[in-house]
Amino acid sequence: MKQAIAILDSGVGGLTVVREVMRQLPREEIIYFGDTARAPYGPRDPQEVRQFTREIVAYLMQYDPKMIVIACNTATAVALDDIRAMVDVPVVGVIHPGARAAIKITRSNRIGVIGTVGTIRSDAYRIALESISPMVEVYSLACPDFVPLVEQGLYRSEEALHVVERSLEPLRGLPLDCLILGCTHYPFLADSISQVMGNDVRLISSAEETAREISTILYQTGRLERTVELPVHRFFCSGQPVTFQTIARQWLGNQIEVCPVVWQVPQIS
Amino acid sequence: MKQAIAILDSGVGGLTVVREVMRQLPREEIIYFGDTARAPYGPRDPQEVRQFTREIVAYLMQYDPKMIVIACNTATAVALDDIRAMVDVPVVGVIHPGARAAIKITRSNRIGVIGTVGTIRSDAYRIALESISPMVEVYSLACPDFVPLVEQGLYRSEEALHVVERSLEPLRGLPLDCLILGCTHYPFLADSISQVMGNDVRLISSAEETAREISTILYQTGRLERTVELPVHRFFCSGQPVTFQTIARQWLGNQIEVCPVVWQVPQIS
Repeated sequence: MKQAIAILDSGVGGLTVVREVMRQLPREEIIYFGDTARAPYGPRDPQEVRQFTREIVAYLMQYDPKMIVIACNTATAVALDDIRAMVDVPVVGVIHPGARAAIKITRSNRIGVIGTVGTIRSDAYRIALESISPMVEVYSLACPDFVPLVEQGLYRSEEALHVVERSLEPLRGLPLDCLILGCTHYPFLADSISQVMGNDVRLISSAEETAREISTILYQTGRLERTVELPVHRFFCSGQPVTFQTIARQWLGNQIEVCPVVWQVPQIS
Repeated sequence: MKQAIAILDSGVGGLTVVREVMRQLPREEIIYFGDTARAPYGPRDPQEVRQFTREIVAYLMQYDPKMIVIACNTATAVALDDIRAMVDVPVVGVIHPGARAAIKITRSNRIGVIGTVGTIRSDAYRIALESISPMVEVYSLACPDFVPLVEQGLYRSEEALHVVERSLEPLRGLPLDCLILGCTHYPFLADSISQVMGNDVRLISSAEETAREISTILYQTGRLERTVELPVHRFFCSGQPVTFQTIARQWLGNQIEVCPVVWQVPQIS
């Protein structure tokens, strides 16, 4: 039996990471947990997000995964170090991969970041970017209206484009050459964001970049899947599975089944 | 004192990796060794390349580096596993980063690779790509005339463009959407290669991608440089330093000094 990559998010946002892992690492098996009953995490107190993340990781560890991926920027910003100390498999967050990709891509050293209120308030991207390179200038903007659109499955609507236009207004005209989508929900809105920001601003999907780094780390630690059997992915969510399953199928393909979760918050030692 | 990243190559090719590390990780200190006296490695016997690589790594380990980077595709193809077994710091080659970047970027799953005769004959890129994804189709081409052009400092000449045009003829018209520059010398020729291949083929620089992965691995293993003093890089080469220093200054900036190497092949235990 394959050892899976465990991926967690506040809701459906982490499915953008799942799709990229399925594409870039088609042999790997995935266990996903979306905490839809308690989404969104963005506006929540950091202490609470930290607690929720620990609970979900404790739940996922029962499946003996080979890696934990915190596919939620808000949770990465406040809980990454905590989870690293908690488990003995590699833990990957979604902030540093996006930051490293931005530093690779930028030529002007002027980098934009959009995210939830929690992520932007934590200043985690700026801290990550500046910890690597003192040369960068970072422009951050919270876009609190994006996640609810996606969680409701409205990301392809006319309304979505209007919300994106209005939200990104403060960034237009700034001398950015790349923009980090600092929330795993945002790739659902990539077409609208790209339309608003124009061709000169390269969008960096933390989903794509995180999948790339998952590949790097699995390889470097000798954990890449070698077997050729098709992987069997498992999806759990803490809330009603109907909307989750609809979005998961739209995004990942019709083969997705969401397990009805018997979610009991596990005891954390 | 900072612990350096040790980077080695058959000659000047690894300087493309150096430039990217200096750009993407400006706090990190570098020790570089170019084996100019014995370049090029491409046409040599694999056993010999393996032996040379072991000798250089043994030499560099005297400086207590925190990481070894084999910035030569030919040496990576034949000696990576050997060097991994030899030292107890992370060892990074230049083949897998390019392969992972190609898998991230491609939408058609049709990937081109150009490299030295040694690299292409080893089939290392195809093996790396297929070990990650069974869906890719790989088109490989050896371009033996590129490295001598670069080692002689002729990469900006009119002649270079002709050589590139003639060499890449077999790839034109193939349905590639990306092309891996599978030799660290080739970014010196990137403008000509891009001109010949056209805008629809994205070039993947193993130099850029390797620097990105060095960043990932240093972060993931807690080895990122935190001090703010400017790093002092050291450059060694085994042959006459004149041409090496000229190219290094053109490529990296005028501040580069090349140490006259007292190169004694170290004993390998």
